[in-house]
Amino acid sequence: MKQSKLFTKTQKDAPKDEVSLNAQLLIRAGFVDKLMAGVYTMLPLGLRVMKKIENIIREEMNGIGGQEILMPSLHPKENWTITGRWDTMDDLYKVKDSSDREMALGPTHEEIVVPLAHKFINSYKDLPFAVYQFQNKFRMELRSKSGVLRGREFIMKDLYSFHISEEDLNKYYESAKQAYFRIFEKAGLKDKTHLTFASGGSFSKYSHEFQTVTSAGEDIIYVCQKCNIAVNKEIIDETNKCPECDSSDFQEEKAIEVGNIFKLNTKFSVPFDLSVMDEKGEKKTVIMGCYGIGLGRLMGTVVEVHHDAKGMIWPEAVAPFKVHLISLGKNEEAEKIYAELQKNNIEVLFDDRDESAGKKFADADLIGIPYRVVVSGKSMQAGGVEVKKRNEEKSEIIEMTYLLQKLK
Amino acid sequence: MKQSKLFTKTQKDAPKDEVSLNAQLLIRAGFVDKLMAGVYTMLPLGLRVMKKIENIIREEMNGIGGQEILMPSLHPKENWTITGRWDTMDDLYKVKDSSDREMALGPTHEEIVVPLAHKFINSYKDLPFAVYQFQNKFRMELRSKSGVLRGREFIMKDLYSFHISEEDLNKYYESAKQAYFRIFEKAGLKDKTHLTFASGGSFSKYSHEFQTVTSAGEDIIYVCQKCNIAVNKEIIDETNKCPECDSSDFQEEKAIEVGNIFKLNTKFSVPFDLSVMDEKGEKKTVIMGCYGIGLGRLMGTVVEVHHDAKGMIWPEAVAPFKVHLISLGKNEEAEKIYAELQKNNIEVLFDDRDESAGKKFADADLIGIPYRVVVSGKSMQAGGVEVKKRNEEKSEIIEMTYLLQKLK
Repeated sequence: MKQSKLFTKTQKDAPKDEVSLNAQLLIRAGFVDKLMAGVYTMLPLGLRVMKKIENIIREEMNGIGGQEILMPSLHPKENWTITGRWDTMDDLYKVKDSSDREMALGPTHEEIVVPLAHKFINSYKDLPFAVYQFQNKFRMELRSKSGVLRGREFIMKDLYSFHISEEDLNKYYESAKQAYFRIFEKAGLKDKTHLTFASGGSFSKYSHEFQTVTSAGEDIIYVCQKCNIAVNKEIIDETNKCPECDSSDFQEEKAIEVGNIFKLNTKFSVPFDLSVMDEKGEKKTVIMGCYGIGLGRLMGTVVEVHHDAKGMIWPEAVAPFKVHLISLGKNEEAEKIYAELQKNNIEVLFDDRDESAGKKFADADLIGIPYRVVVSGKSMQAGGVEVKKRNEEKSEIIEMTYLLQKLK
Repeated sequence: MKQSKLFTKTQKDAPKDEVSLNAQLLIRAGFVDKLMAGVYTMLPLGLRVMKKIENIIREEMNGIGGQEILMPSLHPKENWTITGRWDTMDDLYKVKDSSDREMALGPTHEEIVVPLAHKFINSYKDLPFAVYQFQNKFRMELRSKSGVLRGREFIMKDLYSFHISEEDLNKYYESAKQAYFRIFEKAGLKDKTHLTFASGGSFSKYSHEFQTVTSAGEDIIYVCQKCNIAVNKEIIDETNKCPECDSSDFQEEKAIEVGNIFKLNTKFSVPFDLSVMDEKGEKKTVIMGCYGIGLGRLMGTVVEVHHDAKGMIWPEAVAPFKVHLISLGKNEEAEKIYAELQKNNIEVLFDDRDESAGKKFADADLIGIPYRVVVSGKSMQAGGVEVKKRNEEKSEIIEMTYLLQKLK
C-alpha cells in the first residue's frame, strides 16, 4: 500500500486521557482510534495486525478440530436467567427490545452455545466436538484505563469443547494448552508468557491463565524460578509450593492475562440439561471446557513487550506489513521496487509521501514494520538500497538483485 | 471436512415460527440457527458461505481503493445527538453504561466515520479517500419475518467515500456502481438484479438500490422492459417514464434490496464540520457517498433465487464447498479421493457417515454443493466415480484420472 493514500496520519501526541503506553503508541501511529473509554476503532494498520493474529489463532483452533461458527451479540434474557447470571454478572449490558423484551449484550457465550449444542447432539457418538468463533464481546468494565488491553467492546476468540468424560476433556485440554503456547510463540510472546495456575472454581483444582510479564500488567503472578510456570495470588496464598515441581522459589511479576483455559465440567450443561446417551444407553451429562483469547488485548500486549523510545517493534508474524519501503526523492526507482515486492507477495508499505527524511524515518520507527528499505541517491551511489531491521541498529547496503532473496 | 465430524445435522422440519423459505432451508440444512426473531447464529456451513461473500466484496472494495477498518458497535449518544438521529431513528437500540451514560448500538456508521475522518483530513490533498468495514449492525426491526433477509443483528459491508467536489463523488459513485454489479454477478444474481432508481432525499435526484427479483421480495419495483433498469414505487408515482431511456413500458415485480448506494453530499459533513482547505485556501465542506450490502441478506437472496423442491443450489463462488464427496460403503477408496482433492486445494465435504444412500443423497440435495461425487460399488464397477452437478439432472461416470481435471 502507498502511504500517501493511507487516510490515517501519525500524530505527535496521544489523547491526554489515554494513560496506557500501548494505546498511546497505537493511536499515535494510526493503528487504532479511541471513540470513548474502552471502545476503539481499528484503523487500516491496526486491522491488518488483528487479521494476522486472527489467522494465527484460526490455524491453531482448526488444528485441534475446532469448527468455526459465529454467534450473535443479542442474547435473550431467558438464557441468562437459566444460569442465574442475569442477576449475578455485574458487567452485563442489558438492552430492551421494541416490545420491552429484555436482552443481554453477550460478554461470553456459554448461555448460547450450550442450547445450540443441545439441538444437535443426542448420543456419545456425537462427542467430542469443539466450536469456536471470533466475536465481539461487551463488558461494562469499570476500569478502562489500560488502552486496548481491557475494552468494553472487544473481539475475542472463544472456543467451547464438549466431551463424554473428564478423561476426554483432560486430553483435549492438554492439546488446547499446547495450541495456546504455539499461538503466543508465533505472536512473539514466548519468552515472557507463563502458564499460570489459577483457581478452578468448584469443579476442578486449577484453571490456567497465560500471563505475559510486563510492567503494564494489571495482574500479579509468581513465577517459579525452577520450572518457569507461575501461580496467581490466590494459589500462592493457599500453598507456597509450585504445583508442577514443588519448588518454593517464586519471583513476583506484573503480568497481562493474554489467554485462559477453563474446565467447566458440567457447570453449564446441567442448567440446560445437555446430555447424551452413552454406550450402555444411560444418560450422561456432557462435560465442557472453554478457551479464550482477546485479540485486541494480545495486540496491546505485543506492543507493551516489543517497543522502544521511538515506537513499536512488530514481530514479523503479526506486523501490518513486512517491509517499509521509503523513497527519499527517488520515487521512480522506488516504484519499481514496490512493484517487484508486490509481485513476489511481500507485503509492503511504500512511503511515497512528499516529506523530509527525518519525518519518514521517525514515522517508520513509530509504526515499527520489521524491515526498513530506503531508496535514496546515497544508497544508489553505493549500488543498491539500504536495509535495516527495526530491532537492530546496523543497516546494510544491498544490491537490488539480492533484496528479494533477503526478504523472502 | 468430514461430515461425520460436523456437529450440525440436517433437519426434516424448520421451526414452526419460521415462515420464510430462505431461513427454512438454511436452518434445515444446518447453515444457520435461529436464536430469536431476526437473530441468527452462523453455523460452520453458513459461515463458510458468509466468508465467501465477504471475500468477493472485499476484493471489489479494495479494487475501488477502499481502506478496510472496523468501527465499534457502542456509539456515544453525543454523536447521534449532533445529527439529530438519536430522537428520529425509530429502530435505534439504546443501552446504558454503568454510570448511566447512554449509548446507541450502531445501526449504521455515519455518526462515527465522519468524526473519525475529521481527525485526519485537513487539505484537498487528503481527498478523495474511502473506508469500509464488515461490521455487525443492530436495528430494532418490527417485522422480522423474512428469515436472514431482515435481521435485528446482521453483518453489513458499509463503505463511505469522501470528496472535494460533486464531480469527484459522481465519478466514484459510478465506479462503486460497477463494483456492485460485479459482486452480484459473482454471487450468481446477475440476471435477476436490477439497478433501481429511488428517491435521493434532499441532496440528489436519485439514489440507487440493487433489487433482486424474487417472489420472497418485500419491495415492489417496476422494471423497464426496454433498458432493464428499474424504479421504485415513489419514482413511478412521480413519473411513469424510465429515467434511463424514457420508455413507459414497466413490469411490476417483487424484489429484495441486496444493496444500495447513496450520495450523502454534505448531509453528515455539515453537522460535524468536516471540511478541508481547497487549492485557493478556501474552506470546503467535504462531499460524501455511502454504499451498503448486507451479507446475510445476500446469502438469503441467493437461496431464494437458487433452490428447488429438494433444497438449495449454490453458485460455485459462494458455495460452502465445491464438492460433496459421498461414499456408499466404500470409505477406503473415498478416503483416497478425499485426500487427493484436498491436496489439490479443492474444497470438499466428505460424507463418510454410516447412513443410507437415500439419506445421503437427500442431504446432499438439501445442502446444495455444486458437484456431487459418489464412490460406490456400482461406480467402481463402471470404472470410476459418479459425478453430478446439483443444477443438472444427468450424471456421468468419470475415471479417477479425469476427476481432478474436471473439478479444477
